[in-house]
Amino acid sequence: MRTQVAIIGAGPAGLMLGRLLERAGIEAVIIERRSADYVLGRIRAGVLEQSTVELLARAGVDERLKTEGLVHDGVEISFDGDMHRIDFSGLIGRHVTVYGQTEVTRDLMEARTSSGASSIYEAEDVSIHDFDGARPRVRYRKDGVTHEIACDFIAGCDGFHGVTRASVPKKALQLFERVYHFGWLGVLVDKPPVAEELIYAHHERGFALCSMRSPSRSRYYVQVDADEKVAAWSDERFWDELRRRLNPEVAERLETGPSIEKSIAPLRSFVAEPVRFGRLFLAGDAAHIVPPTGAKGLNMAMHDVRLLADALIEHYGDKSDAGIDSYSAKVLARTWKTERFSWWMTSLLHVFPTTGAFGRRIQRAEFDYLKSSRAAATCLAENYTGLPD
Amino acid sequence: MRTQVAIIGAGPAGLMLGRLLERAGIEAVIIERRSADYVLGRIRAGVLEQSTVELLARAGVDERLKTEGLVHDGVEISFDGDMHRIDFSGLIGRHVTVYGQTEVTRDLMEARTSSGASSIYEAEDVSIHDFDGARPRVRYRKDGVTHEIACDFIAGCDGFHGVTRASVPKKALQLFERVYHFGWLGVLVDKPPVAEELIYAHHERGFALCSMRSPSRSRYYVQVDADEKVAAWSDERFWDELRRRLNPEVAERLETGPSIEKSIAPLRSFVAEPVRFGRLFLAGDAAHIVPPTGAKGLNMAMHDVRLLADALIEHYGDKSDAGIDSYSAKVLARTWKTERFSWWMTSLLHVFPTTGAFGRRIQRAEFDYLKSSRAAATCLAENYTGLPD
Repeated sequence: MRTQVAIIGAGPAGLMLGRLLERAGIEAVIIERRSADYVLGRIRAGVLEQSTVELLARAGVDERLKTEGLVHDGVEISFDGDMHRIDFSGLIGRHVTVYGQTEVTRDLMEARTSSGASSIYEAEDVSIHDFDGARPRVRYRKDGVTHEIACDFIAGCDGFHGVTRASVPKKALQLFERVYHFGWLGVLVDKPPVAEELIYAHHERGFALCSMRSPSRSRYYVQVDADEKVAAWSDERFWDELRRRLNPEVAERLETGPSIEKSIAPLRSFVAEPVRFGRLFLAGDAAHIVPPTGAKGLNMAMHDVRLLADALIEHYGDKSDAGIDSYSAKVLARTWKTERFSWWMTSLLHVFPTTGAFGRRIQRAEFDYLKSSRAAATCLAENYTGLPD
Repeated sequence: MRTQVAIIGAGPAGLMLGRLLERAGIEAVIIERRSADYVLGRIRAGVLEQSTVELLARAGVDERLKTEGLVHDGVEISFDGDMHRIDFSGLIGRHVTVYGQTEVTRDLMEARTSSGASSIYEAEDVSIHDFDGARPRVRYRKDGVTHEIACDFIAGCDGFHGVTRASVPKKALQLFERVYHFGWLGVLVDKPPVAEELIYAHHERGFALCSMRSPSRSRYYVQVDADEKVAAWSDERFWDELRRRLNPEVAERLETGPSIEKSIAPLRSFVAEPVRFGRLFLAGDAAHIVPPTGAKGLNMAMHDVRLLADALIEHYGDKSDAGIDSYSAKVLARTWKTERFSWWMTSLLHVFPTTGAFGRRIQRAEFDYLKSSRAAATCLAENYTGLPD
């Protein structure tokens, strides 16, 4: 079998890349280790930057988004119960759109199915070969049979634990990482959200987040130790802990109910440099991870695949490799700014074992500075809604 | 002996407070452990915020400042040799004035001498008493004789190691501290400065700063380990190290010469809470210390004594204690914002033993963000030129 671009991974990054290439008349095959249902079962944040919304429109997969997406003109920051709103619209005339990552994936998947483009799910033992030469190949096993795809390029959209980055010789890669000593315990509940906008809360007991998937489905989080077990958290314990970390009036309004999903996600900052090796490109979580504070992961992935799609369109259409040659530098320049923001917002809002009394006062001063300075609030707003390329 | 306000410490904070009280017709005595010459011999940064310049004008001690002070409309930030200017005037219409702390002290000292107000230098064994009651007293020994001053209030302007804060019962004080594992090795030289504005430089070998006292006298610094000894640093070694940390064209222009002063200053962040105990007020370094990055120490001290002078003027003039009662909260609110800024600028520009590869990329991203975002540059500018009360 032969194709132009082999895409490893059918998460939102791989599906969006496939879609953009398909609409440009470039042939691509998506190879995914898991089943389609497994991919759709992943619960992830869904705060979309304007540029991500624009990309979904360009890809022709924004119909449901336009009716179901919740436009947010601001976000609330809470510090030991004191609330301050960051007014995106007033500060910079921008907004974000709340729309679950699962929904983005579903829309892209359905578009792919109806166009008849080729996706291979449940591909076992995926391996990539010769991407440093002119003729890369992807091999996998399916139903006991080994297949090989010859291609021009390989796109590594297979996430942090995927095979593509792991296939790059160690000496060609520089890895940057910070692991946080805590995780987010998240609960999904079929109740209306406590507030129309997201509330990011710092409390001396730890971080909390009030988020939502729709007007009737809410997502809440509390910071827990990295070694905490979900089983130790009854719904009741979760709601009690969440309420303690919120402004009392907000806590009072909170509508609780039985959790329909409950899980703990670790926090990690990670960047691989470079993100291109010959004819292999890394995009999304395969290239970089941010802690979820600031909701950047999906947006970064969308940014990467837009650059990559444009580079490949340029290659096949204009016979120019300018986009391919600048891909790594462009991705990394924006990645590090977004890593900085995600790290900063994580540092402001969480309790760290090393914070100490001085550090907590500095966190408080950061919050007070945000409250009193238009410039400081603008920094948060422009990063949260998405920096330019 | 009896006075209205006993001021402990004849540095710029104590002298300024004395001057402001004197002009308001309030009687004050300044008691200083050292000699006047010793106080004048201290070499300290001298980047004055506009509000500090205004206070010197109010105190009638700005004549020399007006002719010798160097107005700076911006500052240069250098990162691994890349330069970016923060344009204070263009961003926020403000500036700073370079004028040595030693000169501020000299001007205040001369004003005090010519007005005939009372300063007691070389006072030994200074102790303060009964400041939690209505009749505080200060005791000291001079030329073998013990003296006692009865007063209404005591102002602790005696610095980090002074007696006033140390006299407060431990349980009444909360102390916040961060010690940095490096110091600044500074050299004073009679050569014109390498640039008209200050250059703050991050380099993988450590921080460097190009500063000045006058158009013909320069002050340069390099970050060194905390346990480094001045004796290990010949002038030649210092200049070589400084050049390596600067942009090559700047290094090329550097005019070097024999050092006329060379010393290592430790870096510390420190805050005491509260800063008022009955009839004792702490001001300046007695209450808080910042690392010198950002040049805030003197400006914070001037801010404190302005608030304190106004509070005392209100007490004696309007018979209102509102200013006295709000002194601690007002000082601390601004102190923590300034501590945050000084900590942030220190964190951006220095190499820490714990920084690591990820941390250095974050520092670089902070610099790149400063370069690309007007909001980020405005944050630096508004903090550097001085936040409002």
